[in-house]
Amino acid sequence: MSSASPGSPPFVPVVPAGGAGTRLWPLSRRDRPKFLLDLTGGGRSLLQETLARVAPLADRMPIVVTGAAHEADVAHQVGDGARVLAEPSPRGSMPAIALAAAIALGEDEDAVIGSFAADHLVGDEEAFVRAVDAARRAAALGLLVTIGIEPDRPATGFGYIQEQRTGPEEDAGRGAGHGVDDAPTRAADEPLAATGAVPVARFVEKPSREVAEQFLADGDFRWNAGMFVVGARVLLDALARQIPSLAEGVLRIAGAHGTPEGPRVLAELWPTLTNIAIDHALAEPLAARGEVAMVPAAFGWDDVGDFGALARQLRAPGAGGAAVRSVADGDVLVLGDVETVGLDARATVYGSSDRLVALVGVSGVSVVAAEDALLVVADDSAQEVGALGTLLDELGRGDLR
Amino acid sequence: MSSASPGSPPFVPVVPAGGAGTRLWPLSRRDRPKFLLDLTGGGRSLLQETLARVAPLADRMPIVVTGAAHEADVAHQVGDGARVLAEPSPRGSMPAIALAAAIALGEDEDAVIGSFAADHLVGDEEAFVRAVDAARRAAALGLLVTIGIEPDRPATGFGYIQEQRTGPEEDAGRGAGHGVDDAPTRAADEPLAATGAVPVARFVEKPSREVAEQFLADGDFRWNAGMFVVGARVLLDALARQIPSLAEGVLRIAGAHGTPEGPRVLAELWPTLTNIAIDHALAEPLAARGEVAMVPAAFGWDDVGDFGALARQLRAPGAGGAAVRSVADGDVLVLGDVETVGLDARATVYGSSDRLVALVGVSGVSVVAAEDALLVVADDSAQEVGALGTLLDELGRGDLR
Repeated sequence: MSSASPGSPPFVPVVPAGGAGTRLWPLSRRDRPKFLLDLTGGGRSLLQETLARVAPLADRMPIVVTGAAHEADVAHQVGDGARVLAEPSPRGSMPAIALAAAIALGEDEDAVIGSFAADHLVGDEEAFVRAVDAARRAAALGLLVTIGIEPDRPATGFGYIQEQRTGPEEDAGRGAGHGVDDAPTRAADEPLAATGAVPVARFVEKPSREVAEQFLADGDFRWNAGMFVVGARVLLDALARQIPSLAEGVLRIAGAHGTPEGPRVLAELWPTLTNIAIDHALAEPLAARGEVAMVPAAFGWDDVGDFGALARQLRAPGAGGAAVRSVADGDVLVLGDVETVGLDARATVYGSSDRLVALVGVSGVSVVAAEDALLVVADDSAQEVGALGTLLDELGRGDLR
Repeated sequence: MSSASPGSPPFVPVVPAGGAGTRLWPLSRRDRPKFLLDLTGGGRSLLQETLARVAPLADRMPIVVTGAAHEADVAHQVGDGARVLAEPSPRGSMPAIALAAAIALGEDEDAVIGSFAADHLVGDEEAFVRAVDAARRAAALGLLVTIGIEPDRPATGFGYIQEQRTGPEEDAGRGAGHGVDDAPTRAADEPLAATGAVPVARFVEKPSREVAEQFLADGDFRWNAGMFVVGARVLLDALARQIPSLAEGVLRIAGAHGTPEGPRVLAELWPTLTNIAIDHALAEPLAARGEVAMVPAAFGWDDVGDFGALARQLRAPGAGGAAVRSVADGDVLVLGDVETVGLDARATVYGSSDRLVALVGVSGVSVVAAEDALLVVADDSAQEVGALGTLLDELGRGDLR
């Protein structure tokens, strides 16, 4: 199935399906997280879209790792398109991905995994496949490979990845105390360039607006889409150097996986694993050692983290008529099953409700109509929605979370 | 009961209760017009507030004139606080007020009526009573007397009344073709000044923003609150000069009123009456003849014509805690029975709904949550709400009007 060169190591997509997506409340709820939602009106959830996207790349059945609370819903949605691993409790992305890597390694010593979040959007699927193919070639060099999205605006809601432009003279720009002199080895840049990837200098957390504008001007920063392609053995060896107990734990769980002992070993060991994200556990320290590469790409990616991002995606050129069920007067997009009228309004309406929604004179606003709650949010303030949960608790309406 | 001087002519409040208030949809509906609504959370409808306001002035039971469709609701709300006259069909304010005047005249040849819309707000009721007392004194001079509200902003949603400052040399500023030379008579200004009233030059329809700003700067323009105080005989004589058939018609209906013939005469004659507002039928032509006076006043009046005006009233100093049932985070006023949370929001929420309303990052917005419809409107665009009715019809949802 893979579009990489024949005889290349088998590729196993890994899809961590975690996170509630509280900034998309009241569409997303505690028991109906973002990845289970159809946010584009295409008839498939973000999880289903993600699996459909990686299917052409897969040499083995993809592995979805999700919380025990969502196992049944995930299994129902993926059908026979993926294996589902249920985490007994949330431990961050590193244990989830490392466990999947350990299982893939048990099936094939040469396995390469590609980890892609279950709740992101990709506009151009062909460009996505080309980028992953390039990442697989770079991963064959023993590197942790990420995909860096070409920024088109000074986004403050994403992390960034800085390209390592040239030699050691530019190292002053890298993370303090992580000079290249400390790096024991690095794959020579010559074969790396042939793959279409570039070396990575450092990962940067979500910046301020000012810093994001500087990044955009600099031209060597790209958005971190949280995509990682790496040999399963490379990943577990690197993890064994960084957090030995974590690598050992997932290998033991994977060893028992599929045997009668599996559930007991998982239940015993999982709670002992370090709770950490792959960014902190591997990506940042390996970048400091020159062991991370990045495939620059542009394929209409977004993490659709809030209603502002979602509105932007739905209005993007080529977003497709399927995303919009009806367009009322003014410029009102309606996604879902809500009768809507607009006058002098530029807005997006979501949800499912038997109440008609009328919008007059509002601009840059999203309205989410659920049967039990209604949200009106300025798209510019959409990141604040996540903070509503605490207010709901204070109001004694935690049941709406 | 009257606070005017003892022995003064009997005063009969007249309250035309018409108009749907479509700009307050979905609070107001075809079968639940604005005057039947409690818009301030005080527990009384605008109609009930209006009757309570005029009660201290009344020497005879007030007369409410409303449409046949609303007769039962109005009768229920007013109880034994007023008489209710039902119009078989809407004919504008002049037939309604003239009929009430004719009935008052039949009871007392000296009766003075005061007409006050059923759906306006007044903040300072004592100042209102003082202004009406002054208007009664001016009406005793045989004039049509109105009350001019001191403007505090260049409002474009109200009509204006221009004071006649001095002599004929300023007449150039008046309506073209209505020079004072055409006016046959005018009450001498000396006794008028003693009443607290001033002569009126002209009535002006709702102005543009630019004109409204000029009016505010000029200082001799006041808002037309649609309040008229006039001797019943004066009104009917003037109407007999302007539209004889209308004066004759209401006198015949009033003559039969209360007799077994009453309903038949009303049903026969009402449809033949000229459909016209008192402004066009009497106020404007009498002003051109120098027969209109105005009592300048400031008592927190507003016609609360839309949600922008209502929000302004509810936020006005002294609006009273009774108006606001709860205040959520940010600056969100809630009027009605709607659970609300706000984050970084300045808004007003109305209605009755079992759905929680959450507002994030929106400012200057009103949200109206009804069980069958929801409105989100920018307060600055609130006048446009009235146009939603046509959109609802086009959508096949005229049932929501």
